[in-house]
Amino acid sequence: MTSIQWPLGFTSAGGNCGIKASGTGDLGVLVAEIPVQWAGTFTLNAAAAAPVLWSKAQLGKLVRAIVVNSGNANACTGLQGEEAVLRTVKAASKALSCSEEQILVASTGPIGVPLPVEKITAALPRAIGELSRETEPFAKSIMTTDTKMKIAVAKAGEATIVGVAKGAAMLAPNMATMLAFIATDARLPEDDLLAPYLRMSVRDSFNLISVDACESTNDSVFVLASALVAATAGEFSAGLRQVTKDLARQMVEDAEGGTRVMRIRVTGTIDPPRAARLAHAVAASALWRAALHGGDPNWGRVLSAIGSEDRELDMDGVTVSIGGVRVFDKGSPTGRTLDAAAEMKGAEVLVEVEVGTGTGEAEVLASDLSPAYVLENATGTS
Amino acid sequence: MTSIQWPLGFTSAGGNCGIKASGTGDLGVLVAEIPVQWAGTFTLNAAAAAPVLWSKAQLGKLVRAIVVNSGNANACTGLQGEEAVLRTVKAASKALSCSEEQILVASTGPIGVPLPVEKITAALPRAIGELSRETEPFAKSIMTTDTKMKIAVAKAGEATIVGVAKGAAMLAPNMATMLAFIATDARLPEDDLLAPYLRMSVRDSFNLISVDACESTNDSVFVLASALVAATAGEFSAGLRQVTKDLARQMVEDAEGGTRVMRIRVTGTIDPPRAARLAHAVAASALWRAALHGGDPNWGRVLSAIGSEDRELDMDGVTVSIGGVRVFDKGSPTGRTLDAAAEMKGAEVLVEVEVGTGTGEAEVLASDLSPAYVLENATGTS
Repeated sequence: MTSIQWPLGFTSAGGNCGIKASGTGDLGVLVAEIPVQWAGTFTLNAAAAAPVLWSKAQLGKLVRAIVVNSGNANACTGLQGEEAVLRTVKAASKALSCSEEQILVASTGPIGVPLPVEKITAALPRAIGELSRETEPFAKSIMTTDTKMKIAVAKAGEATIVGVAKGAAMLAPNMATMLAFIATDARLPEDDLLAPYLRMSVRDSFNLISVDACESTNDSVFVLASALVAATAGEFSAGLRQVTKDLARQMVEDAEGGTRVMRIRVTGTIDPPRAARLAHAVAASALWRAALHGGDPNWGRVLSAIGSEDRELDMDGVTVSIGGVRVFDKGSPTGRTLDAAAEMKGAEVLVEVEVGTGTGEAEVLASDLSPAYVLENATGTS
Repeated sequence: MTSIQWPLGFTSAGGNCGIKASGTGDLGVLVAEIPVQWAGTFTLNAAAAAPVLWSKAQLGKLVRAIVVNSGNANACTGLQGEEAVLRTVKAASKALSCSEEQILVASTGPIGVPLPVEKITAALPRAIGELSRETEPFAKSIMTTDTKMKIAVAKAGEATIVGVAKGAAMLAPNMATMLAFIATDARLPEDDLLAPYLRMSVRDSFNLISVDACESTNDSVFVLASALVAATAGEFSAGLRQVTKDLARQMVEDAEGGTRVMRIRVTGTIDPPRAARLAHAVAASALWRAALHGGDPNWGRVLSAIGSEDRELDMDGVTVSIGGVRVFDKGSPTGRTLDAAAEMKGAEVLVEVEVGTGTGEAEVLASDLSPAYVLENATGTS
């Protein structure tokens, strides 16, 4: 069985260039046959990595390729990090006979370690010689602590949208240690729709997941469009949402140390952003995430989290249900905590919080906090 | 050896009234001989517990006693919780022959469980019959997951300030699942100094610690002054700071699952609150706390945390040291990560972050994130 194919006009390659001593994939290249339109969203972290700064600066120009490495974030690496980006871009543009500005870059891995860029520049020509429509080698090359490849596909009328991503940890709102590369052969009716559709899709997918409420230095989502197949705006928008939501869910399901996914649905706020903030507060609570891990319906921690996020909240208007079992009803416990215990044991736990009579609502996907997460992140740098 | 004694004018008692099946202390009473001045600071959480709301409402009046129970937070318990407070207050005022408004209350333990108030009201007369100057029975009666009693004492000239507290988890800025009861025999030169001195002391002690960035529904700090011994404002202020800082440190050292304390010192901001926010962002990072647990100098997670908290921060002005070893110097790594590893292994780790040339600074005490913390919080409700 072959893996999912990139849309028309795109090829990729992936392999090991020596950054990871393990020999697993650490260098990927996604190439458009000709210069194409693109849009991107990036981390808002002030410690944004050198590759993020380079790629952001190319917004609005046409691009030919994205070079991505795992095993090193090239973040907090100072001038050395900027030079590493320039050397990568120069090598890729030479191999593809295009301008340097047509090369985007992305990195993921440990922060603060100088990037061994000579390994990338040495391996790039060979990688470009191995380009194909297969997505798997590329998807594998961007994995860090991910245990599974993350690939999603959707149709937009006759056109196709394919996304490849990595996730695992340092995952929180406003981008996470996540990279997503989306390619489509769709040709939209208007030129300037790619960026706004991407923004909306990211808002409703990657920005509504959380593993550990830690916001990364390297988060980047790219969408490239070869425009070879006509699609309507509605078809494209729906397809892009499907791909980004699919990838976001795959990230939470593969969270570091994660054993359960919780779907936190907040309703009744005056607007959707407020609902999203409350849901993220629940997703960020170490105590509630630990309870989720143990399957313990300690719902007071949900109330404590939202009461800390919105200090004006009227608890007499708040209702909480776990797996459909109402445990707190307009300010009072219902005495059904033991009934809710059974709902906390599955692979997915639904937490519903109604906070008032407004029409704002949001749903955040998050993972539990396990000893394995702690141990996975307790060593490795020295 | 007798325990530390309460200051002149105060007595207390503590024991088990049946809330905790284990038979360990769960009910304490702190009594002033005559009605005394007091001040208090309380959680800002919108889900503030019924006892918090009652005690806050008595600010500005004279008080005779504080009744505190552990084993149940009486939070998110609705009308039932308010009634439990009223019944507690009525029973205590009867036993002490004072008005109901002269009784303060505090609770700590699981949220959302109806308080078996009849156990408290039945036990109160006996507890009041056992009052003494000893602090230990009271200090033991307020413990939940604490492994040690937390008592601190300081002199204010000839006067004495004694504080008793509990901590452990759901500990974060703006009050935590912490209760602190401070009594002093000091008579201040002016009547209205108690509240502002308490506010300043809390700001610089309890509000500068974090275990898990979870803000509790029950945090309360009380200071009662019997005014039997003259003290200058300067003496009292210094003594109160000493007691609150001592108790705050004891809380972090006894954090749930904690194996190390980190002292996060942020300097160079435009004002102290900004420095405190950045330090708290480091203290809240699950990733950095896991690295601290393993003794791994993964300092990129410190930069990621502050860059997420202040998105405008100029990383070229940021310097990070661990245990005095500079690992990041004005935007670039120094290559001394391995030297810093040795500094991550002790019982206390100093993390210094200089972010600019301002005069604002703050220091936050926080604990690591361990598998034991997760396991301690993963079960218990059902």
